[in-house]
Amino acid sequence: MTLLLKRWGITRHNVQGTYVMRERVASLRYVFYPRNVAIIGASRDPNKPGSVILKNVLEGPSGIEVYPVNPKAEEIMGLRCYPTVLDVPDGVDLAVIAIPAPLVPGAMKDCITKGVKAAIIISAGFGETESGKALQDELERVVHEGRTRVLGPNTFGVMMPGRINTVFYPYDKSTSPRPGNVAFITQSGAMGFLLLEKMAYYRIGISAFVSIGNKIDVDENDLIEFLIDDDSTKSIACYLESFRDGREFFEISRRVARRKPIVLLKSGVTERGARAAASHTGALAGSSAVLEGALRQAGVIGAHDEEELIDFAVALAYGKPLKGGRVAVITSAGGVAVTATDRIENTPGLKMAELSEETKDGIKTILPPFASTANPIDITATSTPEMVDGVLEELQKDDNVDVVLVFSLPQPPLPVTEELVDVITKWFRKGKPLVVGTIENRFTIDSIRTYNQRGVPVFPSITRAVKALKVLRERGRYLEASR
Amino acid sequence: MTLLLKRWGITRHNVQGTYVMRERVASLRYVFYPRNVAIIGASRDPNKPGSVILKNVLEGPSGIEVYPVNPKAEEIMGLRCYPTVLDVPDGVDLAVIAIPAPLVPGAMKDCITKGVKAAIIISAGFGETESGKALQDELERVVHEGRTRVLGPNTFGVMMPGRINTVFYPYDKSTSPRPGNVAFITQSGAMGFLLLEKMAYYRIGISAFVSIGNKIDVDENDLIEFLIDDDSTKSIACYLESFRDGREFFEISRRVARRKPIVLLKSGVTERGARAAASHTGALAGSSAVLEGALRQAGVIGAHDEEELIDFAVALAYGKPLKGGRVAVITSAGGVAVTATDRIENTPGLKMAELSEETKDGIKTILPPFASTANPIDITATSTPEMVDGVLEELQKDDNVDVVLVFSLPQPPLPVTEELVDVITKWFRKGKPLVVGTIENRFTIDSIRTYNQRGVPVFPSITRAVKALKVLRERGRYLEASR
Repeated sequence: MTLLLKRWGITRHNVQGTYVMRERVASLRYVFYPRNVAIIGASRDPNKPGSVILKNVLEGPSGIEVYPVNPKAEEIMGLRCYPTVLDVPDGVDLAVIAIPAPLVPGAMKDCITKGVKAAIIISAGFGETESGKALQDELERVVHEGRTRVLGPNTFGVMMPGRINTVFYPYDKSTSPRPGNVAFITQSGAMGFLLLEKMAYYRIGISAFVSIGNKIDVDENDLIEFLIDDDSTKSIACYLESFRDGREFFEISRRVARRKPIVLLKSGVTERGARAAASHTGALAGSSAVLEGALRQAGVIGAHDEEELIDFAVALAYGKPLKGGRVAVITSAGGVAVTATDRIENTPGLKMAELSEETKDGIKTILPPFASTANPIDITATSTPEMVDGVLEELQKDDNVDVVLVFSLPQPPLPVTEELVDVITKWFRKGKPLVVGTIENRFTIDSIRTYNQRGVPVFPSITRAVKALKVLRERGRYLEASR
Repeated sequence: MTLLLKRWGITRHNVQGTYVMRERVASLRYVFYPRNVAIIGASRDPNKPGSVILKNVLEGPSGIEVYPVNPKAEEIMGLRCYPTVLDVPDGVDLAVIAIPAPLVPGAMKDCITKGVKAAIIISAGFGETESGKALQDELERVVHEGRTRVLGPNTFGVMMPGRINTVFYPYDKSTSPRPGNVAFITQSGAMGFLLLEKMAYYRIGISAFVSIGNKIDVDENDLIEFLIDDDSTKSIACYLESFRDGREFFEISRRVARRKPIVLLKSGVTERGARAAASHTGALAGSSAVLEGALRQAGVIGAHDEEELIDFAVALAYGKPLKGGRVAVITSAGGVAVTATDRIENTPGLKMAELSEETKDGIKTILPPFASTANPIDITATSTPEMVDGVLEELQKDDNVDVVLVFSLPQPPLPVTEELVDVITKWFRKGKPLVVGTIENRFTIDSIRTYNQRGVPVFPSITRAVKALKVLRERGRYLEASR
């Protein structure tokens, strides 16, 4: 962004700057909501990245015009093909560029001449490699002379399920990431792809996926500002190896974090990791240690690895911020009850709730005599969905309980039943804050997917579920403190 | 065990005591290697636990005689049925008891009269519930008058894949836990079952599964001593909520840990957790904080949750102890490289290896020019199994490398290829210590199962893979220090 402002001769702080910044962010609408898309590098060979992208874009909502661009073809997938983007008869909102790196600056010049609003440069072989650095310099010069917003180069593309998909891997209905509320910005295309597929595998819904690549123009800061206004986005997960402008990142975060939570996995925090990052993205990593304190002050939730990144973003997108840390645990497995209790009691900010006598009496009438009515509530192997329903109802009235951690476990030989999933979904939707825990196996995997599909936050290990509670409590505290 | 010695009038420390202890442990062979099994509570109703157990036992190796015991049937599943165990014509090695709790003391008396060598009491409703405490006292009196070894009551059963399965859930070939090298002892039947199914789901091979239930006779200490001599067992995972005799547990561990590693998840370590444990298993949890130091001194690896318990046991059963902590990382995903580097550098005992110039030069000839030949070795998205093979070969000669963490990642749109799995398996088997990392999704799940099936330790998150390295390094250090 800083570069963009500079090339428009504007500083961030003057009045016109504010307007331009707004326009700069708003211009990203052409990336996510283009009225038409030119695919530069579409080909009659269906395996070429450009062709896969063409197919993925064509599967978006009808009404988006698509223009294949390729000097060697007249028609691709039944669409008229244009030799260059300059030959496209209409104005172009978005150009996706997937051609050999040396051809990119030329194609980019065409885009600028044409007045294309935004471009996504999929092509790799730029600043992320020693030999591509000069080419990236050339490309930057071209880009900075124009007003076309550019994502990339070396990006894996963007995806908004049901809207736009410029990723160059084939998808069909069963494997496509589902629409939902987690936005995911990634600086590593490969990491991004692996996690996008992980989310699709567990049917976690996403609002947007953006691979920022080498960030010669559009960066994480632009994207955060844009996505904060996206109605579907309820949390933003960021995988970053370097900040384009760290100060600005924290300024923006501080400004917007009240509205939507941001989770950050900043890798390259050790000296060795920073070196690895430099050789990988060609960008210099920031200071070798991002202060957790700086993150907290800005309201950003730090993640230490890719699992926390997604788990925390899911918890924050789908769960409710917690007003207190007193947890009631429901489970049918004694060992899970004890282990969860240990994990909760050992987590700062959380503790096991002391149930009121009234609640315990109420639970006693629901459970068999040998079940434990103290917290953790062990409904034992005789558990039924009705018992879980009854216990959840009792807990709603108890002011000593801030959140319920309910373990959704099977009564083998049957997998977790639809009835149990329905009961838990019902109370998640209408009751106190609730998080679901489980253990992934043949009896639970389908229900994990169902919960995710319904937007009920579910975590397939005890520790992961407890960490989700911790993050929701931190979010609650942050919202209280920043009120 | 203490109780058994007492009832045999023997202290652990006299000479006869040593013999008896050996015999006491050896007597557990009747639990795992019975020549014949009486199923007390087999029924013509195929859904009764006794019938499921009968079916599971019948699916074991031929040559095990099976005697259904039920006063109300003459024949069950084509087998002659006996009214009581006393009516069985031959001597009985193992009786599995799955009848209503109040009938158990009587059936147990019959077993003792008959001279049955060992009994597994599946029935629940004893000391784990308030109302069953008196019944457990009665059962203990019966058991302590006899010499039949007793597992339970309130046990989920035992399983040695391909040998014996007294678990009361139905299994078929596709869902059965696979034979392998992890022994798993659990005090919580439900937790045990969930993790057994988790291991089956990922095709992690187990040597034995034992749910110890209320431990009125056989306890974790007996089982550890027995399993240490089991050839298939390469590591022992223990989930415990209480020690039957903590001092003895550590004595035994200290004595045997050099031979085979023991991983312990001791839950009930917080005061609240201990309370939950007491209400669940009826046993008093030990001291509220198990000292990590005591564990380390005894050579026991501590786990904090169910995921670490299984991961660590898998690492130790299938991986090699590390003589040093210098890790070489191979991956085709830049973000994974950087994040793994951070995790390794932040883990005490581990650090990123400095590759020799020779190794780097060798790698240079294998990888494309834009790949990083420094550690982490990022073979980029153009990665082929041949490149991974070549890099692994180069690393073998480098004395600066103690272990290789290789990420097994897909080149979409194809899942991880058989070729890649074969290359990694080959080097795992013939080369330096090696651990596989990945991220679970549709492109990797099959390969995760294949690695596990082949006994190659694989972990589906960066942190989990790095923790496995840490545990292998700790094991290496322990073996050095205790030499």
